[in-house]
Amino acid sequence: MARPSEDDLIARFFAPLAGPGGLALEDDAARLSAEPGFDLILTCDALVAGVHFFADDPPEAIAAKALRVNLSDLAAKGARPAGFLLALALPRDFEESWLGRFAAGLGADIAAYECPLLGGDTVATPGPLMISITALGHVPAGRMVPRTGARPGDFLYVSGTIGDAALGLQVRLGTLAVSAEEGTFLGERYLRPQPRNALAGALVAHAHGAMDISDGFAGDLRKMLRVSGAGARVDVARVPLSGAARAVIAREPQLLAQALTGGDDYEILASVPPAQAAAFEASAATACVAVTRVGVVTAEVGPPQFLDEAGQIMDFTNLSYSHF
Amino acid sequence: MARPSEDDLIARFFAPLAGPGGLALEDDAARLSAEPGFDLILTCDALVAGVHFFADDPPEAIAAKALRVNLSDLAAKGARPAGFLLALALPRDFEESWLGRFAAGLGADIAAYECPLLGGDTVATPGPLMISITALGHVPAGRMVPRTGARPGDFLYVSGTIGDAALGLQVRLGTLAVSAEEGTFLGERYLRPQPRNALAGALVAHAHGAMDISDGFAGDLRKMLRVSGAGARVDVARVPLSGAARAVIAREPQLLAQALTGGDDYEILASVPPAQAAAFEASAATACVAVTRVGVVTAEVGPPQFLDEAGQIMDFTNLSYSHF
Repeated sequence: MARPSEDDLIARFFAPLAGPGGLALEDDAARLSAEPGFDLILTCDALVAGVHFFADDPPEAIAAKALRVNLSDLAAKGARPAGFLLALALPRDFEESWLGRFAAGLGADIAAYECPLLGGDTVATPGPLMISITALGHVPAGRMVPRTGARPGDFLYVSGTIGDAALGLQVRLGTLAVSAEEGTFLGERYLRPQPRNALAGALVAHAHGAMDISDGFAGDLRKMLRVSGAGARVDVARVPLSGAARAVIAREPQLLAQALTGGDDYEILASVPPAQAAAFEASAATACVAVTRVGVVTAEVGPPQFLDEAGQIMDFTNLSYSHF
Repeated sequence: MARPSEDDLIARFFAPLAGPGGLALEDDAARLSAEPGFDLILTCDALVAGVHFFADDPPEAIAAKALRVNLSDLAAKGARPAGFLLALALPRDFEESWLGRFAAGLGADIAAYECPLLGGDTVATPGPLMISITALGHVPAGRMVPRTGARPGDFLYVSGTIGDAALGLQVRLGTLAVSAEEGTFLGERYLRPQPRNALAGALVAHAHGAMDISDGFAGDLRKMLRVSGAGARVDVARVPLSGAARAVIAREPQLLAQALTGGDDYEILASVPPAQAAAFEASAATACVAVTRVGVVTAEVGPPQFLDEAGQIMDFTNLSYSHF
């Protein structure tokens, strides 16, 4: 049977996902009208099979992760999703049924996050599946929440719970023994990030600075402090952990370091002035996103200090995940 | 020696290329202010080593091609470049010297086309090098030149010369015997596309429709006619050929089909109403871009007819290049 052409694939699987700006994916490019009074926020994240996900993960979950890691960046900047472009490199032996499920997963998130497909490119590769997404969002002009915005005295908040995905990856790799319930919960937290786009408004209204936590809480906090020219103290006991993560760490305390330094959280780290803290918490609650105060920004420029319950400094030598 | 981290690579090779909206590549995302009165045009093209270019092509040329194929789409829509995001998947054995030359090539085109780097992602891959670029441009609101705009009676124009890159690829593959001068010229036309961004203003002012010719003149014209609901007659003798292409085809006439159906031209195909033809030609001349009238749009919906000098229909069975 003849392989379908690129145009056939686009017409069958992706054109039905296109928003109005995508021009039915029949033109050279997409068109987006300017929104006066808003800045455009742009982010780009690429995932490679065998590096960022498992090739045999459900296609719907691969699609969702590829989009959601970008949505998480938009959320951290306080931006409302406006659409995305998808570059998809398919191994030559891809199955159309796989592509159908991938497109279905994408379609579900397009609807859930109101982030239409605007365009893209589909190419063949002799290598592994690769997905590169560029996502766009709108934020009120001049109000993007910068990573550089942390100021001494600010409270540090994180959304959701930290470390589940890092532990879930170990479950997936078979290197961490857990109960069935723990395994399901942690595995899902690794497989399906939950970007905190509902928190965008609270961040714009109340945060000095924010970033998404994708390469590990400890290392990403260090990055925020470096570009902000500040330091921080974190009360480790305050870092929110899920019940499953707490249970696992109670059994193997050394896994705490993995939870705090592992990647793939896709939670938000925010720096909020104390005077705005109550309003930020109220706004987050209205948006149904849990946020927890975990520490404070300090004027001592340098890496963050992590303190245990006795006030002793904890050392996490490997602060972040790097693909190289 | 320890491999550099992703952040190190970005700081050394790409941060120096970032425009103001790129925020020094230190934030989660890029920011672009709205330009009231303009629409944003977005395009995404991905290139894979061994598929879209040769892994041993000069790194500067690979970078230039990756950006220019996107600039060509912006040109066809009448858009002025505003910036781009780069997703780069590097094989694990990449050389830093290679990356330095790649960045230098990108930097040269960033300056030449005034198209700053806004952001991106650098990841490791066990597969071949892959480059995915999303480029953005601005066009006066409501004035994007659509692929769907060809109307019966319009004159069909192409920019530059057609077929050089397809013949140049054969030279590169060693399957076409040419003189040294022909080989150099055709090889360069394959290696270094010349996007016609200078033509954008003329297209916005005078064209009903346009697209960039990337998958072969004959096949791309067919695509434009299909989405425009029209047909066309092309006088093959009028299709502009370079001296080198003419010489090669004079020796091997069957290569004419390859020139008209092969890919990688990155010229512009435009549909211009007769009343605007003189003004379009004058505007193109002012922009120093050669344009040639090659045919006419007709009301007989269907694939284009190619006529030889005797008015006989020529048959090109394989109308376009497809990667699948």
